Amino acid sequence: MNEALPIHCVALSGGVGGAKLALGLSRVLPGDALTVVCNTADDFDHLGLRICPDLDTVMYTLAGISNRVTGWGQAHETWSFLEALSHLGGETWFRLGDRDLATHVERSRWLRAGETLTEATDALCRALGIAARVLPMSDDPVRTIVLTETGELSFQHYFVRDACEPAVSGFRFDGIDTARPQAAFLSALEDQATRAILVCPSNPFVSVDPVLALDGVEEALRRAAAPVVAVSPIIGGAAIKGPAAKMMAELGMPVTAAGVARHYQERDLLDGFVIDDADAGQAAEIEDLGVPTLVTGTVMETLADRERLAGETMDFARGLGARCGDRAGTSPPERFA
Amino acid sequence: MNEALPIHCVALSGGVGGAKLALGLSRVLPGDALTVVCNTADDFDHLGLRICPDLDTVMYTLAGISNRVTGWGQAHETWSFLEALSHLGGETWFRLGDRDLATHVERSRWLRAGETLTEATDALCRALGIAARVLPMSDDPVRTIVLTETGELSFQHYFVRDACEPAVSGFRFDGIDTARPQAAFLSALEDQATRAILVCPSNPFVSVDPVLALDGVEEALRRAAAPVVAVSPIIGGAAIKGPAAKMMAELGMPVTAAGVARHYQERDLLDGFVIDDADAGQAAEIEDLGVPTLVTGTVMETLADRERLAGETMDFARGLGARCGDRAGTSPPERFA
Repeated sequence: MNEALPIHCVALSGGVGGAKLALGLSRVLPGDALTVVCNTADDFDHLGLRICPDLDTVMYTLAGISNRVTGWGQAHETWSFLEALSHLGGETWFRLGDRDLATHVERSRWLRAGETLTEATDALCRALGIAARVLPMSDDPVRTIVLTETGELSFQHYFVRDACEPAVSGFRFDGIDTARPQAAFLSALEDQATRAILVCPSNPFVSVDPVLALDGVEEALRRAAAPVVAVSPIIGGAAIKGPAAKMMAELGMPVTAAGVARHYQERDLLDGFVIDDADAGQAAEIEDLGVPTLVTGTVMETLADRERLAGETMDFARGLGARCGDRAGTSPPERFA
Repeated sequence: MNEALPIHCVALSGGVGGAKLALGLSRVLPGDALTVVCNTADDFDHLGLRICPDLDTVMYTLAGISNRVTGWGQAHETWSFLEALSHLGGETWFRLGDRDLATHVERSRWLRAGETLTEATDALCRALGIAARVLPMSDDPVRTIVLTETGELSFQHYFVRDACEPAVSGFRFDGIDTARPQAAFLSALEDQATRAILVCPSNPFVSVDPVLALDGVEEALRRAAAPVVAVSPIIGGAAIKGPAAKMMAELGMPVTAAGVARHYQERDLLDGFVIDDADAGQAAEIEDLGVPTLVTGTVMETLADRERLAGETMDFARGLGARCGDRAGTSPPERFA
């Protein structure tokens, strides 16, 4: 299968679901053929430390040290720091494990010393032995604000402290107007070596949309020679993890894979969509949006699941890529700008 | 014994030895009758965190959570953070335990938010249920530089990283010229309620001298109505812990309790000195310096040892206080300024 794979893939990822697919991709692609661009609008400063939940989940997953029970943090974690912090009356709603803390302390130290988040992430990835390139979507701060029935909440307050309970009415990405997408991210989208751009099965609203909302990203996706393929985070009307389904319902959207496809295709972003066998009935609806659809098993429980879905999605993209090439033939300046 | 005790004591302390006596004092004095002033010239910034080894040792000891095996850090400590940090290629020469880390993270956060070290220390002490008042010697940074045969070393590099191996030729306290002694420290020395000023059995050069070197402290000690009593950190020609004896030898001083007494009395600071039974033979030499000397057991292995030495030292100071009063009668402006 590897011989037939496209030679470079850019994957846009949030946390858990995205990290699972990224791990699969990292195992079916050569080490230097994968760029994972992570949402950083969940990042926040806590206890004087810069915490980047999506970057960390992706890094820990690619490094094989993620905690697969919780979906966040490290395996074999201990909690002495948090116990002692609690004893001191400190804020313990955000669960910082002792091992995890080393990441935040080192990153925060580097950032204070003037390094960019990209540089700090690169150093962490090298230390963790990660072959793939992991990029923050931007070196500039973007912060998701969740608009809820009880008022505006910072993302981590909504997500962790309040356990996603308040009903959402929308989102705002503070800083998005001035944040520049990471330069290597934009150039990877445009790189002729890039043969697939994947939107991982991550939360469309708070994991993927912040990446898309960065200046120039949507245009770059529409202009890219490589096909853009998203994998649905909604399976059988529910999200495997996280509040995506709850958010869709609260926003008045159908809680379906097709609803996710429409969410992206309203902006003319998709060249392909991947849905689970459980949602095969929605394939026609999605194709009607003009989006070729792959129906396969998308639940990633085992490592083999991750590898298989990654391989199938890359093969699917490769087939679409040929079509993009065909279309590009009629409009080269637009497709190969 | 308690009824006869002086009503307020100010103890100048470094780390381990000082903390042991401070614990004894905290148990023989009413909670609000003890002020422990800690050396902060060992403090340093590491991994973006402010670390205050002497303050921490005193706080952990008074709170009953100190690690009595290592002499620093907390009991029941775990080391996952440092393991993970090592994995990331971070600096691990300074042993930061997971529980200990909570102290540094909280303190650093407060300092960055504009609180003083005094305020941060007070908050930590309240959280840890410490009744005594624990004060940093100053809210301004003072940093001990150890002058050695191999050049100048910051204190923690000398003490921890290089394990006190380089021979010392002297010390410099960077920042001492502009640092102000903590205001409550100076006023406690002058307070009429203070009936004893104790110099704990701490390293004379790097734990006590920085406190004494602060502007106005030596004058305040000489002027204080309360007697100044030091407890020798040298017993039988050796220090219980730390490099005091090694330093004395390298500086060409006799490695004796009398050598310590002379070190302080050259500056006319002492009203009394406490030495161990093992050094009873030096009592006459110390008395010849004009310093009344108490000979007793000063090795503090058990909690009972700490309480007994604290009680005996306070009783000794109380007797000296009466004499100070007598002397004061002949020179009130000098003793009761």
